[in-house]
Amino acid sequence: MDFKTLLLSKKSRVDEELKKYFVAKNGFQKTIFEAMAYSINAGGKRLRPVLMIEVCDMLGGKIDDVMPFACAIEMIHTYSLIHDDLPAMDNDDYRRGKLTNHKVFGEGIAILAGDGLLNLAFETMIKKIIDGKIDKDKGIQAMFEIAKAAGVEGMIGGQVVDLESEGKEIDKETLEFIHLKKTTALIEASIKAGAIIGGANEQEYGALSEYGRNIGLAFQIVDDILDVVGDEKKLGKKVGSDFNNDKSTYVSLFGVDKSKKIAKDLINRSINVLEIFGEKADFLRELSRFLEVRDY
Amino acid sequence: MDFKTLLLSKKSRVDEELKKYFVAKNGFQKTIFEAMAYSINAGGKRLRPVLMIEVCDMLGGKIDDVMPFACAIEMIHTYSLIHDDLPAMDNDDYRRGKLTNHKVFGEGIAILAGDGLLNLAFETMIKKIIDGKIDKDKGIQAMFEIAKAAGVEGMIGGQVVDLESEGKEIDKETLEFIHLKKTTALIEASIKAGAIIGGANEQEYGALSEYGRNIGLAFQIVDDILDVVGDEKKLGKKVGSDFNNDKSTYVSLFGVDKSKKIAKDLINRSINVLEIFGEKADFLRELSRFLEVRDY
Repeated sequence: MDFKTLLLSKKSRVDEELKKYFVAKNGFQKTIFEAMAYSINAGGKRLRPVLMIEVCDMLGGKIDDVMPFACAIEMIHTYSLIHDDLPAMDNDDYRRGKLTNHKVFGEGIAILAGDGLLNLAFETMIKKIIDGKIDKDKGIQAMFEIAKAAGVEGMIGGQVVDLESEGKEIDKETLEFIHLKKTTALIEASIKAGAIIGGANEQEYGALSEYGRNIGLAFQIVDDILDVVGDEKKLGKKVGSDFNNDKSTYVSLFGVDKSKKIAKDLINRSINVLEIFGEKADFLRELSRFLEVRDY
Repeated sequence: MDFKTLLLSKKSRVDEELKKYFVAKNGFQKTIFEAMAYSINAGGKRLRPVLMIEVCDMLGGKIDDVMPFACAIEMIHTYSLIHDDLPAMDNDDYRRGKLTNHKVFGEGIAILAGDGLLNLAFETMIKKIIDGKIDKDKGIQAMFEIAKAAGVEGMIGGQVVDLESEGKEIDKETLEFIHLKKTTALIEASIKAGAIIGGANEQEYGALSEYGRNIGLAFQIVDDILDVVGDEKKLGKKVGSDFNNDKSTYVSLFGVDKSKKIAKDLINRSINVLEIFGEKADFLRELSRFLEVRDY
């Protein structure tokens, strides 16, 4: 099986699990279930859950233990996209080739669908911890890493600075802050949560956290590059949106070639820190390489 | 000390504790701290945290144990108001006599400030559980009750139906659904969380849950009444907003007198279920009476 096929099979497994949380429901509030399900099922690479599951599995942890946390992090990621697409934020009409949530359900429901997904992510994790089939301390610690990464010291903090920086010249430090918080934090937390549930020792945890930080930042820099040189069909969204929103990116600060070089260096560093895991980490190594050359 | 003074002193204690989470911070994302603090410090009765603390205390639980959960539920309540006030929702310019969050910080930051508060609520609860000074199982169970009440099966579910019902004639069942979910769920969860952390037995937990359901619904019915007959200065917001937003309320369905009667019956029932606690529940009894006659 080539790597892309392997990745797709792992993604499908996550898709199947996620669906269980969003079966069509009746009741007075059925619109909110439809709106949440719409964005959850609108595609996406499932990078964060796949990473979390893979890391846990590599360390000998059980996939059943980590799965609710993997689904929760995808819910958090999806809520952040719904809110990010709103007119008051990036004002995007399309995401992954489909109309954005507020274009289908209206702004009010889109705000609530985002709120609902964030809340459901925590409900999902807490429920798993209460079930008692997972080590409680590991579950709580994994949830804490995810919560911190999603919050004002993490993803939301990055979104705020991103929003405030539109139309302004920003320096490298500010841009790095945005990228590290807005995108990297949640990717790193996926890996940390997988490591905690998988039972990583201190050295393994440190190495995996560094791996996550490096691929997370590289992922966002490649995003910046694809917004300039990418193929709209493959991406499922308009290119040039950063430029049109007057956003500073690695490309606007350093140009395409230098940005590619920075991404490559980060990817190489991410692969180097995996050495202690030997062959077991081959999937993570290939995923690093894939993130560097991805075109969607 | 008369009851109102006693209530104010309990509210002040919550105000002091809440402030600790919102000390002015520098850093790239300082706007989000300002925006969250603005709405948290904009007043409010602190009904939910006061109830939670009181119930825990009455059962012999420690106030230090319950306090982070009490602050968390106020963060959740505050986030729901910020999002509710947005133009895409109720479109309110004033809340508690002050400009609403989006009127001060803009819609984008207001959305993120709401997201940030919801996330911070969970971070706060998880941190307390990790600290190890509280019984882990109680902490997790209390957090679970709060999470469920705040989510799509609770508060958010109620908001969705509320939003969709604007401008429509709705029946009593739909209105009761909205009130039970949008307002009652979180008030009931405050009491449940206090009961769990305070170590309630099954009978006590059942009685307190029923108390919460009754005062929660009464609270919202009184809100409906105050929107018609209330004093704008005391309320800190315009009256008549339900009518102007074309919203069905207990008053529009039953009239003021019948609504007052329904609220009174609920208050009486809430007091009756407290019998098993004897004198210890005097504060909760007085609070019930106060909620019936409140004018703000």
